[in-house]
Amino acid sequence: MQQEFIQKIREIVGENWVDNDRERVWKYSHEHTHESYGMVAPKPVEGSVIVKPIKTSEVSEIMKLAYEYEVPVIPRGAGTALAANATPNRPSIILSLERMDKILEVDSENLIITCEAAVSLGDLIEHLKTDENLHFPLHPGDEGAQVGAMVAMNAGGVRAVRHGVMRDQVRGLEVVLPTGEIIQTGGNMGKLAKDNAGLNLMHLLIGSEGILGIITKTMLKLHPKPRYSATLIASFPERVSAFRAVPRLIKEGIIPMAVEYVEKDQIHETASDLGKRWPAPGGVGDLILIMAEKSEEDFYEQAKEIDRIFSEEGALNIFMAESPAEQREIIEIRSHILPAIEKNIVDSPDITVPRSELGDLMEFLDELGEKYNTRIPVIAHAGDGNLHAFILQENGKVPEFYEELKNEMYRKTIELGGTITGEHGVGSLRLEQLKMQFSGRELEIMWGIKKVFDPKNLLNPGKKVIQT
Amino acid sequence: MQQEFIQKIREIVGENWVDNDRERVWKYSHEHTHESYGMVAPKPVEGSVIVKPIKTSEVSEIMKLAYEYEVPVIPRGAGTALAANATPNRPSIILSLERMDKILEVDSENLIITCEAAVSLGDLIEHLKTDENLHFPLHPGDEGAQVGAMVAMNAGGVRAVRHGVMRDQVRGLEVVLPTGEIIQTGGNMGKLAKDNAGLNLMHLLIGSEGILGIITKTMLKLHPKPRYSATLIASFPERVSAFRAVPRLIKEGIIPMAVEYVEKDQIHETASDLGKRWPAPGGVGDLILIMAEKSEEDFYEQAKEIDRIFSEEGALNIFMAESPAEQREIIEIRSHILPAIEKNIVDSPDITVPRSELGDLMEFLDELGEKYNTRIPVIAHAGDGNLHAFILQENGKVPEFYEELKNEMYRKTIELGGTITGEHGVGSLRLEQLKMQFSGRELEIMWGIKKVFDPKNLLNPGKKVIQT
Repeated sequence: MQQEFIQKIREIVGENWVDNDRERVWKYSHEHTHESYGMVAPKPVEGSVIVKPIKTSEVSEIMKLAYEYEVPVIPRGAGTALAANATPNRPSIILSLERMDKILEVDSENLIITCEAAVSLGDLIEHLKTDENLHFPLHPGDEGAQVGAMVAMNAGGVRAVRHGVMRDQVRGLEVVLPTGEIIQTGGNMGKLAKDNAGLNLMHLLIGSEGILGIITKTMLKLHPKPRYSATLIASFPERVSAFRAVPRLIKEGIIPMAVEYVEKDQIHETASDLGKRWPAPGGVGDLILIMAEKSEEDFYEQAKEIDRIFSEEGALNIFMAESPAEQREIIEIRSHILPAIEKNIVDSPDITVPRSELGDLMEFLDELGEKYNTRIPVIAHAGDGNLHAFILQENGKVPEFYEELKNEMYRKTIELGGTITGEHGVGSLRLEQLKMQFSGRELEIMWGIKKVFDPKNLLNPGKKVIQT
Repeated sequence: MQQEFIQKIREIVGENWVDNDRERVWKYSHEHTHESYGMVAPKPVEGSVIVKPIKTSEVSEIMKLAYEYEVPVIPRGAGTALAANATPNRPSIILSLERMDKILEVDSENLIITCEAAVSLGDLIEHLKTDENLHFPLHPGDEGAQVGAMVAMNAGGVRAVRHGVMRDQVRGLEVVLPTGEIIQTGGNMGKLAKDNAGLNLMHLLIGSEGILGIITKTMLKLHPKPRYSATLIASFPERVSAFRAVPRLIKEGIIPMAVEYVEKDQIHETASDLGKRWPAPGGVGDLILIMAEKSEEDFYEQAKEIDRIFSEEGALNIFMAESPAEQREIIEIRSHILPAIEKNIVDSPDITVPRSELGDLMEFLDELGEKYNTRIPVIAHAGDGNLHAFILQENGKVPEFYEELKNEMYRKTIELGGTITGEHGVGSLRLEQLKMQFSGRELEIMWGIKKVFDPKNLLNPGKKVIQT
């Protein structure tokens, strides 16, 4: 990178906020991807520089300068991504938004919270704890994740059954375009319930993985706080029967906040790693239902129905946690499954199918496991048809059948009406699989859109779309 | 249009489905726009041909041929649009999808209904009447409107408060691109709860007003049927106080299906035109609340709260309709306001602001009325901040101040964080106002996207975006 360019960047953000310390740059060039899928993920190149702007106008100036000097820019959140979505493939500006971390407004008349990009999910939840009426229902996992990046990634996670994904929570965005202009979507305040002016750039930016613009501010929808919550665990004798029980539930009008599937051996192992005990014994897999209702009465009415349906579908027993402490413990154990299994895996495609097809997908994975003589443990956001299938190492190495097995999974997923990625996005890790899902003309259009926003291909290049 | 081209189109769809009868073509070249805003809307040109395909592959072949012969194509639904969204500006193929009108599937495991494009809202509602558990909550007005076009227009209407607009109901689309390829969004079955593969073309197509693709099939989300419904009417002594009461309601966690505002004199007049009586006397304007709850008990609890809040906000009286017949009558009268006033208006911008700003917008309209010495009646989807402001004729003519008054409305709307169109879209009627809302670079990007999809600018040209 030219010294003249670096000097000009220093003038924009101040001496202290340009960092080319080799070790720190190396750390900022990696994501959680490299911890989880280090054996197969694209490696970052060296020679990048970390830049930390404090406000939108600085981000805009940086982009203008980068455009003039033709330097790639990688917007970075907390680095929790899992598909090499922000891995530099050329020496780049790593644009960390971490200093833009203020909650600007909670607007209870329009039910909207306005945050700078780097407000973390944890901060957001904490801030709303003091609000009597309002809450943010989504919980895509790691509470370090930042809201701007959660929008850029269209994060999903465990609570999408009732409230949808991140896309469904966004009402407005402030965005810096690759060419440096600042735009505001959703009217100039981002608080519109209806807006049909022009083509909808906001929904194109949501989930665009940082290739079309840098999200600097988000306006997110808030919801009335549910008054009563409880967590149910239903244990099933086989994986397939658990998955087949889920659409039955939804069909009968029961729509919990979350419907999760976990493997029994994994959850026991994770619990014991944490020095805790998983409260539901028996079976090979559990469905965890997070319920949030207006009243205790509403909850019990639903619980009765759930009990009836799950018993008919072969559940062995149903455990009910009502105290906040018990519920927290269940969620805590559940959210440690990934860290517990991570050290033994090669990859974990986040394949997603229509909810009704989950049983068939699970059956296929069982067959695949037999065919390749391996175990394929899963965790699943079963209510969303979203499955994380773990491809395990063999003797600490990538097994020979890895590529073949992976592609069989993807092909079956698409055959069942599914997508190669429900949550983690394409990044640079899943580019090849795009060709399984999209036609040549679709890929051409996606690349065309990228070029319209970013004619020089400088913003997070090499991610999300294939150059056609 | 070349005879050779017409002949080839005949070979695709069959002799009977190509129609160049002058009178019928003239009818198909007009929309409801020309009845409502005939004095100011762009007039269609003559010389088009109506073509009525029966299936997607025919639509695809037509587009390929049109691309080869460079003939514009205007996809057409029921002609209920209000911004000259499908008015031919050159001799065109008017592609009416009316023969593609079958409901293909109600999938109760994934809560999705799959319809061909020309299924009408009325047919959809009728079809779901026989389903015990499922319903489609949106009601954008005219039940003749077709689902494909409702998606293309991102229709809104009266029931968006709780369930959002058409965009929020779409789970998958089948679309024919301007260049003739057929694509399927939302996985190959359109039933995904989560999907982050590639850039999201589906949300770009929703609300694109037929300039990016022709929607041939829609997969729409269904919801559990509410068990108890009722309609409340609260009468207010001034327009502004009615509008100020709305955000108060939402703030306290009451989220009805619909919150509508009507003017008292208009609703009385409309009722008497229909030989009926409006049940709520007194005041200058009414808020109509459509409530739909799980149980009668839930409803009464909410009604008590509404009564308290509205009384504090100055409501004169509150009327409650619980019998289906009473409720139907209220909705019937409400939906006849537009036909009743239509003959006296020049234009009616569907300006939309954040819900909290409606009171200020209303005050401004009151001042404008005084300034120009005219009345500006409104109807409003008050829960969405969405207002239809009627600019009246003077002595059967367009008043001299029309352009000035209209642009003052738009400017104030944008100043309040609003949009030039919440519902009806841009079409060719609101193109000029796009420049008030978007920067040059945004307009450039929108036009760039149009060109990526449609390099020859043949699909519904001259609508929605400005050529830059």
